[in-house]
Amino acid sequence: MTLATRDRGMPTPPDSPMHRIVGIIGGMGPEATLDLMRRVIAKTPAQDDADHIHLIVENNPKIPSRIAHLIEGTGPDPTPELIRIAANLQHAGAQALAMPCNTAHAYADAIRRAVTIPLLDMVSLTIDRISAVHSTRVALLASTAVHKTGLYASALSARGIVTVLPSRQAEIMALIKAVKRGDTGVRVQAELAKIAGEMANQGDALLIACSELSVVATGIAVPFTDSLDVLAESIVAFATQRTATNSGFTA
Amino acid sequence: MTLATRDRGMPTPPDSPMHRIVGIIGGMGPEATLDLMRRVIAKTPAQDDADHIHLIVENNPKIPSRIAHLIEGTGPDPTPELIRIAANLQHAGAQALAMPCNTAHAYADAIRRAVTIPLLDMVSLTIDRISAVHSTRVALLASTAVHKTGLYASALSARGIVTVLPSRQAEIMALIKAVKRGDTGVRVQAELAKIAGEMANQGDALLIACSELSVVATGIAVPFTDSLDVLAESIVAFATQRTATNSGFTA
Repeated sequence: MTLATRDRGMPTPPDSPMHRIVGIIGGMGPEATLDLMRRVIAKTPAQDDADHIHLIVENNPKIPSRIAHLIEGTGPDPTPELIRIAANLQHAGAQALAMPCNTAHAYADAIRRAVTIPLLDMVSLTIDRISAVHSTRVALLASTAVHKTGLYASALSARGIVTVLPSRQAEIMALIKAVKRGDTGVRVQAELAKIAGEMANQGDALLIACSELSVVATGIAVPFTDSLDVLAESIVAFATQRTATNSGFTA
Repeated sequence: MTLATRDRGMPTPPDSPMHRIVGIIGGMGPEATLDLMRRVIAKTPAQDDADHIHLIVENNPKIPSRIAHLIEGTGPDPTPELIRIAANLQHAGAQALAMPCNTAHAYADAIRRAVTIPLLDMVSLTIDRISAVHSTRVALLASTAVHKTGLYASALSARGIVTVLPSRQAEIMALIKAVKRGDTGVRVQAELAKIAGEMANQGDALLIACSELSVVATGIAVPFTDSLDVLAESIVAFATQRTATNSGFTA
């Protein structure tokens, strides 16, 4: 029985592994959310259903566009909807939150303030991973909104790591938009692989920091760090970690 | 803005298509839930995130085993957990429920009693589909629990349709268990394709009524009806249907 559900007096099935529940603020976009769930399943050792991790997923593609709000200045603020979902997930029993959209991490502080459970922060976790491999120059594949907000570049800079931005950003945005309309085919994969190959020569690490690009990263032949993979591993670590205290995420 | 969220005074993003929200009682198993979500995305015409359907998914692999409870008589009753999830999903804003596990439909009546929103009943919807194509003899690929409860056979019989059960049921259960532990590879697909080919000769329709088998049905060369596909289509129809009233599912 998990601590949060015990506290709330909800029934839980007996004989289940002691896993903690993770809530996913999803739908940004839906393909990326699905891919995160797929990675969590693949990274969880399992013999039967009950060995898998309990996720509560709000796969809400109607969350106002982060790009429209942050970059184009034309759309409504997604903050109220992100906060509503975060609170709903905690209410439903989630013991931590995760958000498979790098751009949406521009609103991470507002989400953190809305709940009393930790956010497994994809940006911070990915920067920790990049720092651990002693990179000094990171080539960054991400949405224009991530570049403009400096979400990665400023945090990397604080650790003395230089960020290299792509010269072909318009083409990268076209690939992100292709995935959002459901095109994850070989042409999109090949195009990303080509750009990634060029970018890899410009840094000592290549970072994919857009979950739509993670979905179509299969064809990339050079080594890279994938933020969606980092998040999936953190979810598995959090959920399967057994703590003796009620102190939340201690991994 | 959807009716249920308007009623509950929750904010929704402007400029989104008028879609209704569907709650998924998932995790039985997690691969099948993922596959349902994948099919919903694939069947939804979309140019951007906001064109997709808003799903709230409780992907809970800790729901007590339906097989252990119904067949082996050794496990606890999953009903309390199914009811808790159903109520949670309605509370979170779902306007209909769906459950990507045929066996779990043995508990469908209890779920219906626990909520005031409709259950998109995979078994009933699939039987409607089979009846519509004027089958008289259906070869049924499903879990032993589905056979023993007569979940499909009795409803088909009421419509004058004979159900043919597989002679190789133990092998089918082995394939279901393989998918539940994460093995969805070509060997499992080929094995199911072989059994399906044999079964197809024994009826005028072949029906896959186990969502784990749906996950690995890719290699089947004979025509078949897939209950998971029927459910995915019903979810898209329900969510995208625009009603002038607050009367729930009218499709």
